[in-house]
Amino acid sequence: MNRLSKALPSPLTTTPLATQPLYLSATDAVTLVRRLGLKHCIEGMAQHIRADFLRWPDFDKSARVAHHSQVGVIELMPISDDTAYSFKYVNGHPQNTAIGLPTVMAFGVLADVATGLPTLVSELTLTTALRTAATSALAAQNLARPNSRVMALIGNGAQSEFQALAFQHLQGINTLRLFDIDPLATTKLVANLSHSGLKLQVCASTAEAVQGADIVTTVTADKACATIVTADMLEPGMHINAVGGDCPGKTELAADVLEMSKVFVEFTPQTRIEGDIQQMPADFAVTELWEVLRGTRPGRDSDTQITVFDSVGFALEDFAALRFMHSAALKLGLGERLALIPQMVDPKNLFGTLLTSSRCTAASAQLSE
Amino acid sequence: MNRLSKALPSPLTTTPLATQPLYLSATDAVTLVRRLGLKHCIEGMAQHIRADFLRWPDFDKSARVAHHSQVGVIELMPISDDTAYSFKYVNGHPQNTAIGLPTVMAFGVLADVATGLPTLVSELTLTTALRTAATSALAAQNLARPNSRVMALIGNGAQSEFQALAFQHLQGINTLRLFDIDPLATTKLVANLSHSGLKLQVCASTAEAVQGADIVTTVTADKACATIVTADMLEPGMHINAVGGDCPGKTELAADVLEMSKVFVEFTPQTRIEGDIQQMPADFAVTELWEVLRGTRPGRDSDTQITVFDSVGFALEDFAALRFMHSAALKLGLGERLALIPQMVDPKNLFGTLLTSSRCTAASAQLSE
Repeated sequence: MNRLSKALPSPLTTTPLATQPLYLSATDAVTLVRRLGLKHCIEGMAQHIRADFLRWPDFDKSARVAHHSQVGVIELMPISDDTAYSFKYVNGHPQNTAIGLPTVMAFGVLADVATGLPTLVSELTLTTALRTAATSALAAQNLARPNSRVMALIGNGAQSEFQALAFQHLQGINTLRLFDIDPLATTKLVANLSHSGLKLQVCASTAEAVQGADIVTTVTADKACATIVTADMLEPGMHINAVGGDCPGKTELAADVLEMSKVFVEFTPQTRIEGDIQQMPADFAVTELWEVLRGTRPGRDSDTQITVFDSVGFALEDFAALRFMHSAALKLGLGERLALIPQMVDPKNLFGTLLTSSRCTAASAQLSE
Repeated sequence: MNRLSKALPSPLTTTPLATQPLYLSATDAVTLVRRLGLKHCIEGMAQHIRADFLRWPDFDKSARVAHHSQVGVIELMPISDDTAYSFKYVNGHPQNTAIGLPTVMAFGVLADVATGLPTLVSELTLTTALRTAATSALAAQNLARPNSRVMALIGNGAQSEFQALAFQHLQGINTLRLFDIDPLATTKLVANLSHSGLKLQVCASTAEAVQGADIVTTVTADKACATIVTADMLEPGMHINAVGGDCPGKTELAADVLEMSKVFVEFTPQTRIEGDIQQMPADFAVTELWEVLRGTRPGRDSDTQITVFDSVGFALEDFAALRFMHSAALKLGLGERLALIPQMVDPKNLFGTLLTSSRCTAASAQLSE
């Protein structure tokens, strides 16, 4: 055994923890958002998302990989550019709230393309709510009429407050018209946003909430082909931010709403499967948001046109959000290192991690017995 | 604020940590293997893998999702049955060892299909080496001649010792004939296994090592179409366990070796892309291992037939390995809980996690400003 110790490097841990991924817990994410302020976080994420959408061709994109069951779905959403890779794990289980769990839970990983080393393992439940709201507001900045001030918010669940505040801060919305089939959800939203400065109008139906709105945001959670918004509710110039229709069999807009509108999407191959346009023919015309942001294709064509952002959530947004959170966490000194990767002096000697220098002979004998 | 506190449940954390995933670090995995013994772990994993292969039709299977770069690959490997879901993150970067990092690093997750809740976040670098070796030995138990005692081991890198010990314990191999283009790798293997009871014969070439072997195991790491084993080396009745040819552009066997042999694979659609049979026509005949294990298709047809297990590593093996590690860690009290999922009394009130009961008004004002 002494011969081995001299002949070969010790397999014991000496590599610095900086080569291990940073771990950002749900608690750390809350601390991060509290310390930076929600407005700063949403603005920062929107900037990151915009910057990454502008370099759209740089990314190796794929539709998410979904595993469906009777009660929900579990998905992986990977993406990479030449230097960084990310994926998100996310579920959707509408019945979860009945047993005290969130409908949507998520976490994600950043990794280094040059080595494959994971650099960040982070909660993404709170972060997804922030990035979804930031993406919605970013799209509306480029698609809604600039003077939009009144937003209908249909579905007042877990994501609704984030949508409200993103539109307040990035788009200038000052009035919310609220509806949810569960009045307690609206009560919760009103309580949470009572100090926001937003004017909150509780409505008795979707039709009432939509009336007079410049922007209509739908964030409902039922896993069903629902028609939350129908053609008779539409008014000229409206922008519809359809967030809740985001997997096969889950839609929010009636087909004629889509027919009457100019429809914008994130990543066409994914949205045709998951978005509200899953109801439409495969050649139904859509415009990808990144082209509007880059100025290569027009957004809204007139003040009276109805625009729809058929948002399903794309991996690029998580990539941007993870990079924002990673950078912010490092600046604030939040999070801790996970010993997720074996640390070896000789990386070809994985087996050596099972042997300790002091007990090497005994362990080797025991391990091999 | 008092009104809110009374009207709505507090958003503060009270949910028990048992609903958070168990985290098993690389250090914990080493402790687990040391405490149970490597033989016990490999046998336990082989049993789990066999049991899951036997219920093959129960699984929702897909080929892995790979992101390739100039220097390596990053992959996600998801799978699920009706109750459990798993995925593995794994890279392959042959140049990593030059900067002190392993070529292959991995971690994985188990989740509950009914709720989407992750139940385990675990290292999978060490665990993958164990499960790959267990799968190889399981295949050989069913494909090699039963009286096989001598194994050539070509490639003496990070996975080689695990292969050696799995074949010793599960297949009855007592002699290893070793070759690696890097003599230091062989020196390391000989040192690591000097107390194993295996007879170790260092050879000067692949051809020399293969001579007289009952089983030939190839675990080389070059990302290239190599021909480690050529037809002239083959002897009647050999079983070839080809482990290192596992991604597009990475093979180990000459095409005529495959033509002379009966070839067995894990999951055909994946192996046609990643395995040694990527060199062959799309209709090249293969047999899936699960059918041999279930007895629905024959394995080896005669004592003189040459058999090849063209192994690329399938998500089902990680699923089984993660379940073995999870169960063992819970029994041994290893690992800790990660606060990866926000804990909320009211799961519809994600925004409430940003507000503390004592500072709710101030925080709400600050967050919304």
